[in-house]
Amino acid sequence: MTEPSDTKAAYDAVAPLYAELFSDVLETLPLERAMLAAFAELVRAQDAGPVADVGCGPGHVTAHLHALGLTAFGVDLSSEMVALARRAHPGLRFDEGSMTDLDLADGVLGGVLASYSVIHMPPGRLPAVFTELHRVLAPGGHLLLGFFAGDDPLPRSFDHKVTLAYRWSPDSLADLLREAGFAEVGRMVREPHADERQFRHAQLLVRKP
Amino acid sequence: MTEPSDTKAAYDAVAPLYAELFSDVLETLPLERAMLAAFAELVRAQDAGPVADVGCGPGHVTAHLHALGLTAFGVDLSSEMVALARRAHPGLRFDEGSMTDLDLADGVLGGVLASYSVIHMPPGRLPAVFTELHRVLAPGGHLLLGFFAGDDPLPRSFDHKVTLAYRWSPDSLADLLREAGFAEVGRMVREPHADERQFRHAQLLVRKP
Repeated sequence: MTEPSDTKAAYDAVAPLYAELFSDVLETLPLERAMLAAFAELVRAQDAGPVADVGCGPGHVTAHLHALGLTAFGVDLSSEMVALARRAHPGLRFDEGSMTDLDLADGVLGGVLASYSVIHMPPGRLPAVFTELHRVLAPGGHLLLGFFAGDDPLPRSFDHKVTLAYRWSPDSLADLLREAGFAEVGRMVREPHADERQFRHAQLLVRKP
Repeated sequence: MTEPSDTKAAYDAVAPLYAELFSDVLETLPLERAMLAAFAELVRAQDAGPVADVGCGPGHVTAHLHALGLTAFGVDLSSEMVALARRAHPGLRFDEGSMTDLDLADGVLGGVLASYSVIHMPPGRLPAVFTELHRVLAPGGHLLLGFFAGDDPLPRSFDHKVTLAYRWSPDSLADLLREAGFAEVGRMVREPHADERQFRHAQLLVRKP
């Protein structure tokens, strides 16, 4: 089973390579950027607090959220990733931290982005993670989750390039989010590109009522 | 069974009211605008021809596509709608026409938008419509379909405010599109807003290979 300490060690080990490979990836992903734009618009309209990019890696998506007019900061388990993110985006805030126990008071955030970060969480621990994300969001706050989509109702592990990860069916993750108190706003699922492995990509957008 | 002539008469009868109610609707729909932005970006990148907004109604989405940098024109069955669209957007082109038989040569379009227009087509006629849309698109061209989503594998009719319409499951429409020669790029499904009837809304984005 992957523990957060394994995820931290795995990302610490590959941080510079990962940053080089993925820092510009959003440019090639119009549907993901579209969902980020809708998320940013909803968060701005609610004006309920800043946005945490949880599992921010080298900070490229945090910077994109900032460019969309949000007050955004990043949180990552990996101190190497946090150091890279700070160097790449010196005007933005990046903290070491875990989505299982965020160093944030209740209800202070207007939004949470978790882009391909919950994929490394052992499935049995995800309900507690979603409860934690719900806790830190203000009422009306939005959560956008990016992940690899599968068809099975049960999460399936696969050999992610960095460390063990899980594919989820959008319906199964949506059920867990509902059980944690969120209401679904919408979802996007896209087919893999030719240069990607053969997993669909999904984004789930939910709201704390 | 609704024939295109019924759809034309029904929209002719309500054109001014419909235009008043829906001309600003995109402002309240960030997820739909997000998908339109992604569609526009993909079409611009391909640069394979103009975009037809098929079933354009009062032309508000045609104008939005134009604002996104596309060469866009509208086509609608209803001459009243076409007249309203021309008055509202005098710089843009609007033609009377039917998606069953477009007055366009093969492969001339870079994109087709069909926003809540195929919903009025009797289900048995949709395969021929998709074949027609495939015909007018250039290779690499994109089609974005907006519709009311249902869960049943079979289309279900409902009492749309203007005229008989059908809800489709995204999977069923995606199957029909695949059979017409399209490849899926991605899809978005969102929950209804509080002021909408209780149907989910969907957008399917596909590509002519």
